[in-house]
Amino acid sequence: MFIAEGPKVVLELLATREFVCQQLFAVAEWLSSNEKLLSHYSGMQVFAVKDFELEKISLLTTPHNVLAVFKKKEPAAPVNIKGRVTLVLDTIQDPGNLGTIIRTADWFGIENIICSHACADMYNPKVVQSTMGSLARVNIFYTPIEEWLNKNAAIKKYAAALNGKNINTLKATKEAIIIIGNEGKGISDTIMQLVDEKITIPKIGEAESLNAAVATGIILAAIS
Amino acid sequence: MFIAEGPKVVLELLATREFVCQQLFAVAEWLSSNEKLLSHYSGMQVFAVKDFELEKISLLTTPHNVLAVFKKKEPAAPVNIKGRVTLVLDTIQDPGNLGTIIRTADWFGIENIICSHACADMYNPKVVQSTMGSLARVNIFYTPIEEWLNKNAAIKKYAAALNGKNINTLKATKEAIIIIGNEGKGISDTIMQLVDEKITIPKIGEAESLNAAVATGIILAAIS
Repeated sequence: MFIAEGPKVVLELLATREFVCQQLFAVAEWLSSNEKLLSHYSGMQVFAVKDFELEKISLLTTPHNVLAVFKKKEPAAPVNIKGRVTLVLDTIQDPGNLGTIIRTADWFGIENIICSHACADMYNPKVVQSTMGSLARVNIFYTPIEEWLNKNAAIKKYAAALNGKNINTLKATKEAIIIIGNEGKGISDTIMQLVDEKITIPKIGEAESLNAAVATGIILAAIS
Repeated sequence: MFIAEGPKVVLELLATREFVCQQLFAVAEWLSSNEKLLSHYSGMQVFAVKDFELEKISLLTTPHNVLAVFKKKEPAAPVNIKGRVTLVLDTIQDPGNLGTIIRTADWFGIENIICSHACADMYNPKVVQSTMGSLARVNIFYTPIEEWLNKNAAIKKYAAALNGKNINTLKATKEAIIIIGNEGKGISDTIMQLVDEKITIPKIGEAESLNAAVATGIILAAIS
Protein backbone atom coordinates (compact mmCIF):
# COMPACT_ATOMS: atom_id res chain seq x y z
CA MET A 1 0.00 0.00 0.00
CA PHE A 2 1.00 3.62 -0.31
CA ILE A 3 -0.36 6.97 0.82
CA ALA A 4 -1.48 9.89 -1.35
CA GLU A 5 -2.75 13.19 0.02
CA GLY A 6 -4.66 16.26 -1.06
CA PRO A 7 -7.57 16.64 -3.52
CA LYS A 8 -5.39 17.03 -6.62
CA VAL A 9 -3.23 13.94 -6.15
CA VAL A 10 -6.02 11.73 -4.76
CA LEU A 11 -8.53 12.69 -7.50
CA GLU A 12 -5.98 12.14 -10.28
CA LEU A 13 -5.05 8.71 -8.92
CA LEU A 14 -8.72 7.78 -8.57
CA ALA A 15 -9.52 9.04 -12.08
CA THR A 16 -6.89 6.97 -13.89
CA ARG A 17 -7.84 3.77 -12.05
CA GLU A 18 -4.21 2.66 -12.35
CA PHE A 19 -4.12 2.08 -8.61
CA VAL A 20 -6.90 0.54 -6.52
CA CYS A 21 -7.95 2.74 -3.61
CA GLN A 22 -8.42 0.75 -0.41
CA GLN A 23 -9.19 3.42 2.14
CA LEU A 24 -10.05 7.09 1.93
CA PHE A 25 -10.07 9.50 4.88
CA ALA A 26 -11.56 12.93 4.30
CA VAL A 27 -13.27 15.81 6.05
CA ALA A 28 -17.08 15.88 5.74
CA GLU A 29 -17.07 18.88 3.40
CA TRP A 30 -14.78 17.17 0.88
CA LEU A 31 -16.82 13.95 1.06
CA SER A 32 -20.11 15.70 0.36
CA SER A 33 -18.74 17.64 -2.62
CA ASN A 34 -17.26 14.42 -4.08
CA GLU A 35 -20.10 12.07 -3.14
CA LYS A 36 -21.13 11.27 -6.71
CA LEU A 37 -17.58 10.56 -7.82
CA LEU A 38 -16.87 8.28 -4.87
CA SER A 39 -20.02 6.24 -5.59
CA HIS A 40 -18.29 4.95 -8.76
CA TYR A 41 -15.64 3.15 -6.75
CA SER A 42 -16.54 -0.11 -5.08
CA GLY A 43 -14.55 -1.94 -2.44
CA MET A 44 -13.12 1.28 -1.05
CA GLN A 45 -13.58 2.06 2.63
CA VAL A 46 -14.48 5.73 3.15
CA PHE A 47 -14.05 7.41 6.52
CA ALA A 48 -15.23 10.87 7.51
CA VAL A 49 -12.60 12.41 9.77
CA LYS A 50 -12.27 15.66 11.68
CA ASP A 51 -9.51 18.14 10.86
CA PHE A 52 -7.57 17.20 13.99
CA GLU A 53 -7.74 13.51 13.08
CA LEU A 54 -6.50 14.19 9.56
CA GLU A 55 -3.65 16.19 11.07
CA LYS A 56 -2.70 13.15 13.14
CA ILE A 57 -2.58 10.71 10.22
CA SER A 58 -1.23 13.12 7.60
CA LEU A 59 2.45 13.23 6.66
CA LEU A 60 2.09 16.83 5.47
CA THR A 61 2.67 19.89 7.63
CA THR A 62 -0.64 21.27 6.34
CA PRO A 63 -3.06 18.43 5.49
CA HIS A 64 -5.38 19.02 2.53
CA ASN A 65 -8.87 17.61 3.31
CA VAL A 66 -8.22 14.06 2.08
CA LEU A 67 -5.78 11.19 2.46
CA ALA A 68 -6.08 7.90 0.60
CA VAL A 69 -4.41 4.50 0.81
CA PHE A 70 -3.83 2.88 -2.59
CA LYS A 71 -2.60 -0.55 -3.54
CA LYS A 72 0.80 -0.69 -5.28
CA LYS A 73 0.85 -2.06 -8.83
CA GLU A 74 2.78 -5.08 -10.04
CA PRO A 75 5.91 -3.63 -11.66
CA ALA A 76 5.84 -4.03 -15.45
CA ALA A 77 8.87 -3.92 -17.76
CA PRO A 78 8.27 -1.49 -20.66
CA VAL A 79 6.70 -3.42 -23.52
CA ASN A 80 7.97 -1.20 -26.28
CA ILE A 81 10.52 1.59 -26.24
CA LYS A 82 11.00 1.80 -30.02
CA GLY A 83 9.92 5.12 -31.47
CA ARG A 84 9.71 6.59 -27.98
CA VAL A 85 11.82 8.67 -25.65
CA THR A 86 12.64 6.76 -22.46
CA LEU A 87 14.25 8.12 -19.29
CA VAL A 88 16.81 6.11 -17.34
CA LEU A 89 17.59 7.32 -13.82
CA ASP A 90 20.93 6.36 -12.28
CA THR A 91 20.58 6.74 -8.50
CA ILE A 92 18.20 9.70 -8.18
CA GLN A 93 18.06 9.63 -4.40
CA ASP A 94 16.00 12.66 -3.44
CA PRO A 95 12.27 11.81 -3.35
CA GLY A 96 11.27 15.35 -4.35
CA ASN A 97 13.56 15.16 -7.38
CA LEU A 98 12.22 11.75 -8.42
CA GLY A 99 8.61 12.93 -8.10
CA THR A 100 9.31 16.11 -10.06
CA ILE A 101 11.09 14.11 -12.77
CA ILE A 102 8.04 11.82 -13.09
CA ARG A 103 5.75 14.88 -13.38
CA THR A 104 8.06 16.47 -15.97
CA ALA A 105 8.24 13.22 -17.95
CA ASP A 106 4.44 13.09 -18.00
CA TRP A 107 4.32 16.66 -19.38
CA PHE A 108 6.61 15.65 -22.24
CA GLY A 109 4.70 12.45 -22.99
CA ILE A 110 7.37 10.04 -21.76
CA GLU A 111 5.76 6.63 -21.25
CA ASN A 112 8.52 4.79 -19.40
CA ILE A 113 11.09 5.61 -16.74
CA ILE A 114 13.71 3.00 -15.90
CA CYS A 115 15.13 3.42 -12.37
CA SER A 116 18.24 1.86 -10.88
CA HIS A 117 17.53 0.11 -7.59
CA ALA A 118 19.45 2.89 -5.81
CA CYS A 119 16.80 5.45 -6.81
CA ALA A 120 14.26 6.65 -4.24
CA ASP A 121 11.17 4.44 -3.95
CA MET A 122 8.37 5.59 -6.29
CA TYR A 123 5.89 5.00 -3.45
CA ASN A 124 7.74 7.16 -0.94
CA PRO A 125 5.09 9.70 0.17
CA LYS A 126 7.29 12.64 -0.90
CA VAL A 127 7.65 11.11 -4.37
CA VAL A 128 3.89 10.53 -4.62
CA GLN A 129 3.12 14.13 -3.57
CA SER A 130 5.60 15.76 -5.92
CA THR A 131 4.37 13.79 -8.95
CA MET A 132 1.07 15.74 -8.60
CA GLY A 133 -0.83 12.74 -9.97
CA SER A 134 1.53 11.86 -12.82
CA LEU A 135 2.50 8.66 -10.98
CA ALA A 136 -0.52 7.00 -12.59
CA ARG A 137 0.41 8.00 -16.14
CA VAL A 138 4.08 7.04 -16.39
CA ASN A 139 5.28 3.44 -16.19
CA ILE A 140 8.13 3.27 -13.68
CA PHE A 141 10.29 0.15 -13.65
CA TYR A 142 13.12 -0.65 -11.23
CA THR A 143 15.86 -2.87 -12.64
CA PRO A 144 19.66 -3.09 -12.85
CA ILE A 145 20.08 -0.37 -15.48
CA GLU A 146 23.39 -1.59 -16.89
CA GLU A 147 21.77 -4.86 -18.00
CA TRP A 148 18.72 -3.04 -19.26
CA LEU A 149 20.81 -0.63 -21.36
CA ASN A 150 22.80 -3.52 -22.81
CA LYS A 151 19.56 -5.22 -23.84
CA ASN A 152 18.47 -2.04 -25.64
CA ALA A 153 21.68 -1.34 -27.50
CA ALA A 154 19.86 -0.43 -30.73
CA ILE A 155 18.43 2.80 -29.34
CA LYS A 156 20.68 5.87 -29.13
CA LYS A 157 21.66 6.72 -25.58
CA TYR A 158 22.24 10.29 -24.43
CA ALA A 159 23.67 11.24 -21.06
CA ALA A 160 23.64 14.58 -19.29
CA ALA A 161 27.32 15.34 -18.64
CA LEU A 162 29.92 18.09 -18.59
CA ASN A 163 31.80 18.75 -21.85
CA GLY A 164 29.18 17.09 -24.03
CA LYS A 165 27.39 18.33 -27.13
CA ASN A 166 25.45 21.57 -26.59
CA ILE A 167 21.77 20.60 -26.20
CA ASN A 168 20.79 23.59 -28.35
CA THR A 169 22.33 21.82 -31.34
CA LEU A 170 20.28 18.63 -30.84
CA LYS A 171 17.55 17.86 -33.32
CA ALA A 172 14.09 16.91 -32.11
CA THR A 173 13.85 13.14 -31.92
CA LYS A 174 11.10 10.62 -31.37
CA GLU A 175 13.38 7.82 -30.21
CA ALA A 176 16.05 8.07 -27.56
CA ILE A 177 17.17 6.89 -24.17
CA ILE A 178 18.09 9.80 -21.88
CA ILE A 179 20.19 8.95 -18.84
CA ILE A 180 20.10 11.25 -15.81
CA GLY A 181 22.67 10.77 -13.05
CA ASN A 182 22.83 11.11 -9.30
CA GLU A 183 22.39 14.55 -7.69
CA GLY A 184 25.95 14.68 -6.38
CA LYS A 185 27.98 12.14 -8.33
CA GLY A 186 26.39 12.24 -11.78
CA ILE A 187 26.30 9.11 -13.92
CA SER A 188 28.40 6.17 -12.75
CA ASP A 189 31.42 5.16 -14.86
CA THR A 190 30.05 1.77 -15.91
CA ILE A 191 26.87 3.40 -17.21
CA MET A 192 28.75 6.25 -18.93
CA GLN A 193 30.61 3.65 -21.02
CA LEU A 194 27.31 2.59 -22.58
CA VAL A 195 26.40 6.12 -23.68
CA ASP A 196 26.40 7.08 -27.38
CA GLU A 197 26.38 10.85 -26.94
CA LYS A 198 27.13 13.10 -24.00
CA ILE A 199 24.98 16.22 -23.93
CA THR A 200 25.47 19.43 -21.97
CA ILE A 201 23.26 22.32 -20.92
CA PRO A 202 25.40 25.42 -21.60
CA LYS A 203 26.39 27.26 -18.42
CA ILE A 204 26.49 31.06 -18.52
CA GLY A 205 26.78 31.80 -14.79
CA GLU A 206 28.57 30.15 -11.91
CA ALA A 207 26.34 27.54 -10.27
CA GLU A 208 28.29 24.28 -10.06
CA SER A 209 25.36 22.22 -11.26
CA LEU A 210 21.65 22.21 -11.99
CA ASN A 211 19.02 20.40 -9.96
CA ALA A 212 18.41 16.94 -11.49
CA ALA A 213 14.72 17.59 -12.22
CA VAL A 214 15.46 21.00 -13.78
CA ALA A 215 18.15 19.43 -15.97
CA THR A 216 15.73 16.68 -17.03
CA GLY A 217 13.13 19.27 -18.01
CA ILE A 218 15.61 21.30 -20.05
CA ILE A 219 16.85 18.21 -21.90
CA LEU A 220 13.35 16.90 -22.62
CA ALA A 221 12.31 20.35 -23.90
CA ALA A 222 15.40 20.42 -26.15
CA ILE A 223 14.79 17.07 -27.81
CA SER A 224 10.97 17.31 -28.02
CA MET B 1 21.00 35.92 10.91
CA PHE B 2 20.36 32.79 8.90
CA ILE B 3 21.54 29.19 8.95
CA ALA B 4 23.42 27.32 6.23
CA GLU B 5 24.43 23.67 6.47
CA GLY B 6 26.75 21.16 4.85
CA PRO B 7 30.26 21.61 3.42
CA LYS B 8 29.12 22.62 -0.06
CA VAL B 9 26.74 25.41 0.94
CA VAL B 10 28.87 26.70 3.84
CA LEU B 11 32.10 26.75 1.81
CA GLU B 12 30.45 28.52 -1.14
CA LEU B 13 28.96 31.17 1.15
CA LEU B 14 32.31 31.66 2.89
CA ALA B 15 34.17 31.85 -0.44
CA THR B 16 32.07 34.64 -1.94
CA ARG B 17 32.24 36.78 1.23
CA GLU B 18 28.79 38.13 0.35
CA PHE B 19 27.58 37.18 3.81
CA VAL B 20 29.53 37.57 7.04
CA CYS B 21 29.83 34.33 9.01
CA GLN B 22 29.23 34.86 12.72
CA GLN B 23 29.40 31.34 14.09
CA LEU B 24 30.48 28.01 12.69
CA PHE B 25 29.79 24.65 14.30
CA ALA B 26 31.59 21.63 12.87
CA VAL B 27 32.89 18.19 13.73
CA ALA B 28 36.61 18.03 14.54
CA GLU B 29 37.47 16.20 11.33
CA TRP B 30 35.93 18.91 9.14
CA LEU B 31 37.61 21.66 11.15
CA SER B 32 41.06 20.14 10.82
CA SER B 33 40.73 19.62 7.06
CA ASN B 34 39.57 23.25 6.63
CA GLU B 35 41.88 24.84 9.21
CA LYS B 36 43.84 26.92 6.73
CA LEU B 37 40.73 28.24 5.01
CA LEU B 38 39.08 29.20 8.29
CA SER B 39 42.16 31.14 9.39
CA HIS B 40 41.35 33.70 6.66
CA TYR B 41 38.13 34.73 8.36
CA SER B 42 38.30 36.98 11.37
CA GLY B 43 35.50 37.73 13.82
CA MET B 44 33.93 34.32 13.31
CA GLN B 45 33.36 32.11 16.34
CA VAL B 46 34.27 28.50 15.59
CA PHE B 47 32.99 25.64 17.73
CA ALA B 48 34.04 22.00 17.53
CA VAL B 49 30.97 19.88 18.13
CA LYS B 50 30.29 16.16 18.40
CA ASP B 51 28.06 14.38 15.91
CA PHE B 52 25.24 14.12 18.43
CA GLU B 53 25.44 17.84 19.15
CA LEU B 54 25.31 18.70 15.45
CA GLU B 55 22.27 16.44 15.16
CA LYS B 56 20.58 18.46 17.88
CA ILE B 57 21.16 21.87 16.28
CA SER B 58 20.79 20.79 12.65
CA LEU B 59 17.56 21.31 10.71
CA LEU B 60 18.46 18.46 8.34
CA THR B 61 17.47 14.84 8.82
CA THR B 62 21.07 13.88 8.13
CA PRO B 63 23.48 16.65 9.24
CA HIS B 64 26.59 17.15 7.11
CA ASN B 65 29.58 17.92 9.36
CA VAL B 66 29.12 21.69 9.50
CA LEU B 67 26.50 24.32 10.27
CA ALA B 68 27.12 28.07 10.06
CA VAL B 69 25.27 31.19 11.10
CA PHE B 70 25.60 34.07 8.64
CA LYS B 71 24.48 37.67 8.82
CA LYS B 72 21.74 38.71 6.38
CA LYS B 73 22.64 41.39 3.83
CA GLU B 74 20.98 44.75 3.42
CA PRO B 75 18.54 44.27 0.52
CA ALA B 76 19.69 46.11 -2.61
CA ALA B 77 17.48 47.14 -5.53
CA PRO B 78 19.03 46.04 -8.86
CA VAL B 79 21.26 48.83 -10.13
CA ASN B 80 20.99 47.98 -13.79
CA ILE B 81 18.72 45.58 -15.60
CA LYS B 82 19.35 46.91 -19.12
CA GLY B 83 21.00 44.39 -21.40
CA ARG B 84 20.30 41.66 -18.88
CA VAL B 85 17.73 38.95 -18.29
CA THR B 86 15.90 39.47 -14.99
CA LEU B 87 13.53 37.06 -13.25
CA VAL B 88 10.39 38.29 -11.49
CA LEU B 89 8.69 35.84 -9.14
CA ASP B 90 5.00 36.31 -8.38
CA THR B 91 4.25 34.43 -5.14
CA ILE B 92 6.61 31.45 -5.34
CA GLN B 93 5.66 30.00 -1.99
CA ASP B 94 7.52 26.72 -1.77
CA PRO B 95 10.99 27.24 -0.27
CA GLY B 96 12.46 24.33 -2.26
CA ASN B 97 11.14 25.85 -5.48
CA LEU B 98 12.52 29.30 -4.65
CA GLY B 99 15.94 27.87 -3.78
CA THR B 100 16.04 25.78 -6.95
CA ILE B 101 15.00 28.80 -9.04
CA ILE B 102 17.87 30.82 -7.51
CA ARG B 103 20.32 28.00 -8.32
CA THR B 104 18.97 27.72 -11.88
CA ALA B 105 19.17 31.49 -12.35
CA ASP B 106 22.82 31.40 -11.24
CA TRP B 107 23.54 28.67 -13.82
CA PHE B 108 22.13 30.86 -16.58
CA GLY B 109 23.98 33.97 -15.41
CA ILE B 110 20.91 35.86 -14.15
CA GLU B 111 22.10 38.69 -11.89
CA ASN B 112 18.82 39.82 -10.34
CA ILE B 113 15.64 38.15 -9.10
CA ILE B 114 12.73 40.38 -8.09
CA CYS B 115 10.38 38.67 -5.60
CA SER B 116 6.87 39.70 -4.59
CA HIS B 117 6.50 39.94 -0.82
CA ALA B 118 4.32 36.82 -0.94
CA CYS B 119 7.30 34.71 -2.08
CA ALA B 120 9.04 32.43 0.43
CA ASP B 121 11.78 34.15 2.45
CA MET B 122 15.20 33.84 0.79
CA TYR B 123 16.71 33.10 4.22
CA ASN B 124 14.33 30.23 4.99
CA PRO B 125 16.71 27.30 5.71
CA LYS B 126 15.09 25.19 2.96
CA VAL B 127 15.67 27.99 0.46
CA VAL B 128 19.29 28.37 1.57
CA GLN B 129 19.93 24.61 1.28
CA SER B 130 18.35 24.21 -2.14
CA THR B 131 20.29 27.14 -3.64
CA MET B 132 23.43 25.02 -3.17
CA GLY B 133 25.47 28.17 -2.59
CA SER B 134 23.99 30.28 -5.40
CA LEU B 135 22.36 32.54 -2.81
CA ALA B 136 25.60 34.51 -2.66
CA ARG B 137 25.82 35.06 -6.42
CA VAL B 138 22.33 36.26 -7.33
CA ASN B 139 20.90 39.55 -6.07
CA ILE B 140 17.43 38.89 -4.65
CA PHE B 141 15.19 41.85 -4.00
CA TYR B 142 11.71 41.81 -2.40
CA THR B 143 9.38 44.58 -3.54
CA PRO B 144 5.79 45.11 -4.75
CA ILE B 145 6.33 43.69 -8.25
CA GLU B 146 3.49 45.58 -9.95
CA GLU B 147 5.17 48.91 -9.15
CA TRP B 148 8.57 47.55 -10.09
CA LEU B 149 7.32 46.30 -13.48
CA ASN B 150 5.68 49.67 -14.19
CA LYS B 151 8.95 51.41 -13.46
CA ASN B 152 10.72 49.16 -15.97
CA ALA B 153 8.24 49.43 -18.80
CA ALA B 154 10.97 49.78 -21.44
CA ILE B 155 12.13 46.18 -21.10
CA LYS B 156 10.11 43.43 -22.79
CA LYS B 157 8.20 41.30 -20.31
CA TYR B 158 7.52 37.62 -20.89
CA ALA B 159 5.23 35.50 -18.77
CA ALA B 160 4.95 31.73 -18.55
CA ALA B 161 1.31 31.01 -19.35
CA LEU B 162 -1.02 28.63 -21.17
CA ASN B 163 -1.83 29.44 -24.81
CA GLY B 164 1.20 31.66 -25.30
CA LYS B 165 3.87 31.64 -27.95
CA ASN B 166 5.76 28.35 -28.20
CA ILE B 167 9.11 28.85 -26.42
CA ASN B 168 10.84 26.90 -29.19
CA THR B 169 10.14 29.81 -31.54
CA LEU B 170 11.75 32.40 -29.25
CA LYS B 171 15.03 33.90 -30.30
CA ALA B 172 17.92 34.11 -27.86
CA THR B 173 17.88 37.47 -26.13
CA LYS B 174 20.20 39.38 -23.84
CA GLU B 175 17.52 41.64 -22.38
CA ALA B 176 14.20 40.51 -20.96
CA ILE B 177 12.08 40.30 -17.85
CA ILE B 178 10.71 36.80 -17.29
CA ILE B 179 7.77 36.50 -14.91
CA ILE B 180 7.10 33.19 -13.16
CA GLY B 181 3.83 32.68 -11.32
CA ASN B 182 2.59 30.89 -8.23
CA GLU B 183 2.76 27.08 -8.08
CA GLY B 184 -1.01 26.65 -8.04
CA LYS B 185 -2.52 29.87 -9.32
CA GLY B 186 0.00 31.06 -11.88
CA ILE B 187 0.51 34.78 -12.47
CA SER B 188 -2.01 37.14 -10.90
CA ASP B 189 -4.34 39.10 -13.22
CA THR B 190 -2.94 42.53 -12.38
CA ILE B 191 0.58 41.36 -13.22
CA MET B 192 -0.54 39.56 -16.40
CA GLN B 193 -1.85 42.86 -17.74
CA LEU B 194 1.68 44.25 -17.72
CA VAL B 195 3.07 41.40 -19.81
CA ASP B 196 4.21 41.98 -23.40
CA GLU B 197 4.33 38.36 -24.51
CA LYS B 198 2.90 35.17 -23.07
CA ILE B 199 5.11 32.16 -23.63
CA THR B 200 4.28 28.47 -23.34
CA ILE B 201 6.27 25.27 -22.95
CA PRO B 202 4.60 22.84 -25.39
CA LYS B 203 2.85 19.95 -23.65
CA ILE B 204 3.02 16.52 -25.26
CA GLY B 205 1.70 14.37 -22.41
CA GLU B 206 -0.95 14.85 -19.77
CA ALA B 207 0.53 16.46 -16.65
CA GLU B 208 -1.58 19.47 -15.73
CA SER B 209 1.43 21.66 -15.10
CA LEU B 210 5.18 21.73 -14.65
CA ASN B 211 7.00 22.41 -11.41
CA ALA B 212 7.82 26.16 -11.19
CA ALA B 213 11.59 25.62 -11.00
CA VAL B 214 11.56 23.17 -13.92
CA ALA B 215 9.52 25.63 -16.00
CA THR B 216 11.97 28.43 -15.13
CA GLY B 217 14.90 26.27 -16.24
CA ILE B 218 13.26 25.38 -19.55
CA ILE B 219 12.42 29.03 -20.30
CA LEU B 220 15.89 30.30 -19.38
CA ALA B 221 17.46 27.59 -21.55
CA ALA B 222 15.17 28.59 -24.44
CA ILE B 223 16.03 32.29 -24.37
CA SER B 224 19.74 31.94 -23.53
